[in-house]
Amino acid sequence: MESTRLDIDRIRAARRVIDPVFLDTPLYRCEALEPGLGCAVSVKLETANPVRSFKGRGTEMVASQLAGNGSGAVVCASAGNLGQALAWSGRGRGLDVAVVASRFATAAKLDRIRALGAALELVDGDHEMARERAADIARYEGIRLVEDSLDIETCEGAATIGLELVDTPPSFDTVLIALGGGALATGVGHVVKALAPGVEVICVQPLGAPAMTHSWRQRRVVTTESTDTIADGVAGRRPIPAVLDDLLLVADDAVLVREASIIAGMRLLLDHAGLVVEPSAALGIAAILEDRDRFAGRHVVTVVCGSNVDVDAYHRWVGTARVPGV
Amino acid sequence: MESTRLDIDRIRAARRVIDPVFLDTPLYRCEALEPGLGCAVSVKLETANPVRSFKGRGTEMVASQLAGNGSGAVVCASAGNLGQALAWSGRGRGLDVAVVASRFATAAKLDRIRALGAALELVDGDHEMARERAADIARYEGIRLVEDSLDIETCEGAATIGLELVDTPPSFDTVLIALGGGALATGVGHVVKALAPGVEVICVQPLGAPAMTHSWRQRRVVTTESTDTIADGVAGRRPIPAVLDDLLLVADDAVLVREASIIAGMRLLLDHAGLVVEPSAALGIAAILEDRDRFAGRHVVTVVCGSNVDVDAYHRWVGTARVPGV
Repeated sequence: MESTRLDIDRIRAARRVIDPVFLDTPLYRCEALEPGLGCAVSVKLETANPVRSFKGRGTEMVASQLAGNGSGAVVCASAGNLGQALAWSGRGRGLDVAVVASRFATAAKLDRIRALGAALELVDGDHEMARERAADIARYEGIRLVEDSLDIETCEGAATIGLELVDTPPSFDTVLIALGGGALATGVGHVVKALAPGVEVICVQPLGAPAMTHSWRQRRVVTTESTDTIADGVAGRRPIPAVLDDLLLVADDAVLVREASIIAGMRLLLDHAGLVVEPSAALGIAAILEDRDRFAGRHVVTVVCGSNVDVDAYHRWVGTARVPGV
Repeated sequence: MESTRLDIDRIRAARRVIDPVFLDTPLYRCEALEPGLGCAVSVKLETANPVRSFKGRGTEMVASQLAGNGSGAVVCASAGNLGQALAWSGRGRGLDVAVVASRFATAAKLDRIRALGAALELVDGDHEMARERAADIARYEGIRLVEDSLDIETCEGAATIGLELVDTPPSFDTVLIALGGGALATGVGHVVKALAPGVEVICVQPLGAPAMTHSWRQRRVVTTESTDTIADGVAGRRPIPAVLDDLLLVADDAVLVREASIIAGMRLLLDHAGLVVEPSAALGIAAILEDRDRFAGRHVVTVVCGSNVDVDAYHRWVGTARVPGV
């Protein structure tokens, strides 16, 4: 494989820096899901930790470096999960953490960012505007800006999930990964392609936020004017060129799924696996629902990447959705 | 401590026999629960595995022994979780597994027992009648009967949870454990009292199924005529003398909680921790809700022991319950 920005030795070393509460997460077969999906399905569960998403793996690396070199402050833009994770990792190391988010972000995520002691600033725009504002703060205050997916720690932190996937029997035919900024996809994809190259890496994005998928398909950065999806965690409009370059090297495919399929996936995971997941974490199941023939007879693993939902919205989604054909 | 039937060395050895998918389960602080509970709360999550309960830890030991000595068949009575776990462990080792359950048992549990390939027999009575029928089958067919809580493997399998609690920082002030037949309580309690004797062990049972708690308080077996609780996993009427003897040595207290508190606990875990749990797994949170003063300022860990629910009943419970004072 051509070289991405990621490095297997650094990813292995990351395991020694990341708080064990984020590592060695459950990986297990969910047979009760399978009659509805037509293939063998395992889940890699990244929600059973203090911040209910995989993002702690990356923020632990960042916060540990900052604490090690005497830095006292850090800022990031976040749709809500990175901010929580950075707040958690920073709090444990005495860092001042600032998070910039869209005022339209999931309220439960914003509440948790505040509860974890971070300074939260809301912008009257979408996540891309929050990214700009966070960059301004970093420049003005002279503090570290954490840029999700661009900063190698966010990718290599996520990549430790890949180590846990390839180090554990049984092997899988396909890994389904939510695609947003690209840290999770390039991280897990890098490890899978380096250590288990026969395993297919498929990225999944909502039709309502397709910028990175369009970019992957056209092999150049394609931006969109807006996003329209409940999957707030992956709703970016401006892919980062360096991340796209990495994704082109590790993804076998990138597919887009409908909102109804995301909701159906959330409901399947609740009803048949007992798992509360946020919309981004149901993208893999949504991809199977939309193309059962493609996955028939295969063993698929999907990374359940987060469970931070607004309770009312969640009940509305899973209470009204119907799963076609299940 | 006086001697229970359990042995720390055997419990440590059990970790080498039990499929790793059941071991080293998530243990983490749930700060979002804490404003509603008034104490620090960590959960030990036993639901993220192929059978969605802790019971696999014990059935792995049983099935491994049977396979090792050439036995081909095994039978148990079950409210639903032991049966699933034995079916899973037996299937992987080529054993014929028979499960006897009440026809009033949770339908989702019975469906999974069948799906895992076990022969399921339903009795027209409660769990105690299923126990009698399973014993008859074992005698008649000359096969191994697995008796939950009486058979040492079920206790020592559950006890491996205790090792994971005491081996991981931070230490806790109190462990809250669902009390049914007693395997989980005596198992975890034995390890905690042996290795971290300063930690308080509190067993929690529903007011509607209080036989073991009454027995513990009176230091003699007390049976009841019936049970009336949604916590199907702990609804026994006839405590086993040897298990009570062990429980008397390891439990610091046994408390009873109301059905409304169990439902409130399930809802808190769903809304603030994103966890689907079955009623038995909410008993610890219910105990805190009923006696906030007792736990104020302490660090409590509760074992979330299972998540197998009938979907409709679950939605009914969590959709209508209101958490008093939260």
